[in-house]
Amino acid sequence: MLPIAISLGDPAGIGPELLNKSLDHLGPSLIFGAQLYCPSPLPAQCQWIPIPTNESVTIGKPNAESGRQAYNSFKKAAEAVKQGKCRALVTLPLAKEYVALSQPGFHGHTDELNLWWGGQSLMTLIGGDLKVALVTDHEALIDVPSLITTKRVLQKARTLRQNIKRYFTKDKEPQLHLLGLNPHAGENGLIGHEEALLNDALEVLTSEGGNWQGPWPADAFFAHHSYGDGVLAMYHDQGLIPVKMLGKKSGVHITLGLPFIRSSPDHGTAFDIAGQNKADPSSFIEALRLAQRL
Amino acid sequence: MLPIAISLGDPAGIGPELLNKSLDHLGPSLIFGAQLYCPSPLPAQCQWIPIPTNESVTIGKPNAESGRQAYNSFKKAAEAVKQGKCRALVTLPLAKEYVALSQPGFHGHTDELNLWWGGQSLMTLIGGDLKVALVTDHEALIDVPSLITTKRVLQKARTLRQNIKRYFTKDKEPQLHLLGLNPHAGENGLIGHEEALLNDALEVLTSEGGNWQGPWPADAFFAHHSYGDGVLAMYHDQGLIPVKMLGKKSGVHITLGLPFIRSSPDHGTAFDIAGQNKADPSSFIEALRLAQRL
Repeated sequence: MLPIAISLGDPAGIGPELLNKSLDHLGPSLIFGAQLYCPSPLPAQCQWIPIPTNESVTIGKPNAESGRQAYNSFKKAAEAVKQGKCRALVTLPLAKEYVALSQPGFHGHTDELNLWWGGQSLMTLIGGDLKVALVTDHEALIDVPSLITTKRVLQKARTLRQNIKRYFTKDKEPQLHLLGLNPHAGENGLIGHEEALLNDALEVLTSEGGNWQGPWPADAFFAHHSYGDGVLAMYHDQGLIPVKMLGKKSGVHITLGLPFIRSSPDHGTAFDIAGQNKADPSSFIEALRLAQRL
Repeated sequence: MLPIAISLGDPAGIGPELLNKSLDHLGPSLIFGAQLYCPSPLPAQCQWIPIPTNESVTIGKPNAESGRQAYNSFKKAAEAVKQGKCRALVTLPLAKEYVALSQPGFHGHTDELNLWWGGQSLMTLIGGDLKVALVTDHEALIDVPSLITTKRVLQKARTLRQNIKRYFTKDKEPQLHLLGLNPHAGENGLIGHEEALLNDALEVLTSEGGNWQGPWPADAFFAHHSYGDGVLAMYHDQGLIPVKMLGKKSGVHITLGLPFIRSSPDHGTAFDIAGQNKADPSSFIEALRLAQRL
């Protein structure tokens, strides 16, 4: 079986430390980063792919150089998947703002993968019993309502159904839920009007054979409902607040809708604790486990 | 000590059943509703204040009449507080849409109390260790960003600090948190720009002697941070998703910023299970307990 590609993330953050703390869980993998960060000894089934660098980076002090190294590691790892040398991609955290210093317009791993694969990817998080995917992800809240279109909802919902079926329920029709956009899912049109569009989308999705319910009021849904096989949330915090609460330290992010699985821990670079041996590898280990299993 | 005023909520919903299941917890109270719903026997320390009705209501079938009865019960109960006959108000659930059939423009208990008291009230929920208040509450998501103004944030934050100090920390300066509006709290201006305004508001609040931190990325905050004495969320689902998850069945809603305490269960009318003896009174009992204690 092909190895997993792992990108190191921002070397000024906790990425190198997480990698070091997870050596027992790595499995066959190619890891991309400046030679400096290669753990010694590296487990036999792993291979370090060195990336040349000009400048060194100070742990805890991200800058344009650390962002550049993070980007290069990510790019090389993704290329290894694209070239068929690896079967899945696990990314350690980077900070968009430091990558953007050398890559203007960089909007994160997921957007970049979408560009590279002409993509229709779907940001999905797993925590506890909950798998939640997002119709909009790293968008300013002010832009969210205009992005909730029938076309976009249908596309994300179809990707979710297809991928949950493929990777999780193994051809059994998954039980799926759609959340409302507004408080109380609009309370029958009293609070906002986007739920009318969501109801129309649900009719289409049901007519295609999907087992969908909604649009649910998000607060009541997460408190009292069973989560089924997957939930489609309208925006970032609506999906990520509950999934991170449920995931505790081992929540995982996966990108569905690409020709391969990409997973990552559900936390960031944590520059404030980098280099202090305080970083918890649970989420990264779970991301590795998932990439290996799926 | 003065009694508590209790409104019956929509009689087609679970309000009357919750009341019946909570007789042991009522304490001295005046309860407002059509005579039909008065439990027999009513505990000695409670008094039923009958409200005349013309039509009967079918359990599980809300309509204009059930909405009208819900509104009248609420209005009479609030009046009893205003007239100094009761010291706090506990409201059972109603559905805005049925009240609005006879009271056009009705936007819920809290908005109505604001109107009646010329108000600056603050919707607050308690669940587990978390007390969360909302800068915007029953607003369509599309309207939220324009409502996040410095003036509004400061006003809500001051009300929260004052009331948490008065009712909960008992004059000890409370530890308070402000959430960001955008994913990742805007990631330093990369995703939306409202966090600049929130940072300015935090400076003002700190200069006034408040112990405030933020603006926090909401997802990470609820998953990994301690909640302190109170949290100010920007919009409905951002605050209610976590607090309902933590509250389980005994989450409570309180309205702060009025001259008295108003509490209510954190769920709705549940017309679908009304009359089936399935309603769980935990949240209502907790609302009663809180109104009695504060």
